[in-house]
Amino acid sequence: MTYTSRQVRLASRPTGFPTAENFSIEDHPVRPLEEGEALLRTLYLSLDPYMRGRMNEGRSYAEHLQVGDIMLGGTVSEVIESRSAEVTPGQIVVGGAGWQTFSVEAAAGLRVIDPDDAPISTALGVLGMTGFTAYSGLLAIGRPQAGETLAVAAATGPVGATVGQIAKLKGMRTIGIAGGPEKVAYLRELGFDAAVDHRRDDLAEQIAEAAPDGIDVYFENVGGAVWEAVLPHLNLFGRVPVCGLAANYNATGAPAGPDRSQQLLQTVLNQSLTIRGFIQTEFQETQFESFLRDMGAWVREGRITYREDITDGLDNAPETFIGMLSGKNFGKTLIRVADDA
Amino acid sequence: MTYTSRQVRLASRPTGFPTAENFSIEDHPVRPLEEGEALLRTLYLSLDPYMRGRMNEGRSYAEHLQVGDIMLGGTVSEVIESRSAEVTPGQIVVGGAGWQTFSVEAAAGLRVIDPDDAPISTALGVLGMTGFTAYSGLLAIGRPQAGETLAVAAATGPVGATVGQIAKLKGMRTIGIAGGPEKVAYLRELGFDAAVDHRRDDLAEQIAEAAPDGIDVYFENVGGAVWEAVLPHLNLFGRVPVCGLAANYNATGAPAGPDRSQQLLQTVLNQSLTIRGFIQTEFQETQFESFLRDMGAWVREGRITYREDITDGLDNAPETFIGMLSGKNFGKTLIRVADDA
Repeated sequence: MTYTSRQVRLASRPTGFPTAENFSIEDHPVRPLEEGEALLRTLYLSLDPYMRGRMNEGRSYAEHLQVGDIMLGGTVSEVIESRSAEVTPGQIVVGGAGWQTFSVEAAAGLRVIDPDDAPISTALGVLGMTGFTAYSGLLAIGRPQAGETLAVAAATGPVGATVGQIAKLKGMRTIGIAGGPEKVAYLRELGFDAAVDHRRDDLAEQIAEAAPDGIDVYFENVGGAVWEAVLPHLNLFGRVPVCGLAANYNATGAPAGPDRSQQLLQTVLNQSLTIRGFIQTEFQETQFESFLRDMGAWVREGRITYREDITDGLDNAPETFIGMLSGKNFGKTLIRVADDA
Repeated sequence: MTYTSRQVRLASRPTGFPTAENFSIEDHPVRPLEEGEALLRTLYLSLDPYMRGRMNEGRSYAEHLQVGDIMLGGTVSEVIESRSAEVTPGQIVVGGAGWQTFSVEAAAGLRVIDPDDAPISTALGVLGMTGFTAYSGLLAIGRPQAGETLAVAAATGPVGATVGQIAKLKGMRTIGIAGGPEKVAYLRELGFDAAVDHRRDDLAEQIAEAAPDGIDVYFENVGGAVWEAVLPHLNLFGRVPVCGLAANYNATGAPAGPDRSQQLLQTVLNQSLTIRGFIQTEFQETQFESFLRDMGAWVREGRITYREDITDGLDNAPETFIGMLSGKNFGKTLIRVADDA
């Protein structure tokens, strides 16, 4: 049997915010399997802000997409055919098929999951890349200490919400920063001690009020105005895991002056801060197993909750992605590409 | 016997570069000793760029000077009288008398040194604060690995020169950055593998040429244009111990735009960089003993060399300090306040 994979490809590089024209949707026949490979049917596709960066040209922390490439992304798929002993048809696996309905992948790169453990979509979220980003960045770089204060932006997003809840489990006081009253209300549900609305024009005052003892860990995944508002409140020996800079992904140039970069370094010096960029892959070998064990237990016990924002149909991926970049998502953004068999 | 201490005090806060008018020179009688105190005669006074920061008002990593205060600073002194069992007259001690000829200090805060071990002035430099700054910042934060590349600015200064030599001992390729041909020539003497002159207008090209494999550790003690030139060359997982920002100490405001601070964070993210501010005091308890042992041996064996820039007479301290801030010193800047008895 031959399969046709529907694919979303990068049609052109965006200037600033992406538009529908930057994507093309095409059908292509799936090539035959080689030894060690598996044919997969995509069930869920993860949409994440980092993808915006990959659409640009230039030096980055990972390979950039070329125009014409299939958009990249983490996926949960069903194994349809296999030429490897590692996976068998019917199994559910986590892989990186990208934005397409069928894929051929090396079986060695797939992770088999048990649908009885948790909903399979969570393998892309709280029990997958975003959860692991939160877990590894907070524990390895943030080094949470009971009694200290944590702040996190995009705090209703899949990374931020998980960071806040883990920090709380570790005994920290937690400040969540999000945009708009609905998200701020959700921050309270998530158990944040203080909630800050970055869309209000008194951001600086809100942060000052939320952090009377300063901020020891700022988990950075936004940048821009939120960064500027948090920086003056960082305590001596504060830690800043830098996981993303969503506010800047669509920037077309450096913002107007004055140049605050030297002031940033001066604050790093004055406060003996640690600012550390990371991608979760660097911790994969050392921490992924403890993550699956800890987070699996926390989710089962209801100590960590999560929220998913699921849209049906691959064809809706570009619009959903663009909406997510402007904060329209509420929880982990996923495309249900096909129904779970 | 009563003593008179000649003192240099902060007469007014500088705006930008300090001038002679910001200092006053006064004679004051030395008060009688209390239990646990010692009367000290200053022999050497250390002049260091961090002092400029303390002359400003505002939040900083340490207490700021108030107008009228004696200028602060590390000193090597002779014990003249003692009301403590910890020190006895005639001993040579390291303390923090500041810019004055006699001081009363708590004996518990003094470190006795043996003049037979090394010239006593080195207790303020290579075997003292500046050497320890280089040692602790490089080892604890820079984590040098053989085969990697290190860059350091102000590389003929007491911190930078020591950083470069320790890095070389650890098997790194070393790039020294300094201002002007005389200092660049000295970089070669110090054993740097490459020497960059930041006063030439091809700074970016020089750095690119000196760092064909990028830079793994940038020991930052300057900031400004040198920082901007180094940043694009930092390798994945690069480490940046931030020990000082001498280029900015006399700034009266943020430089003109564009605002490069978000680009800085983006580079931190793309390259998984660690930027970490520090003052050596944080490592005092854990590393000072190993420092004295290691560095003492390296200096005795001639594996670490040092250079001192000594001016006679406390009254010359303001002018010497101002000159140092504009890079006129060549080596560790010291005032010989009185002859070693």
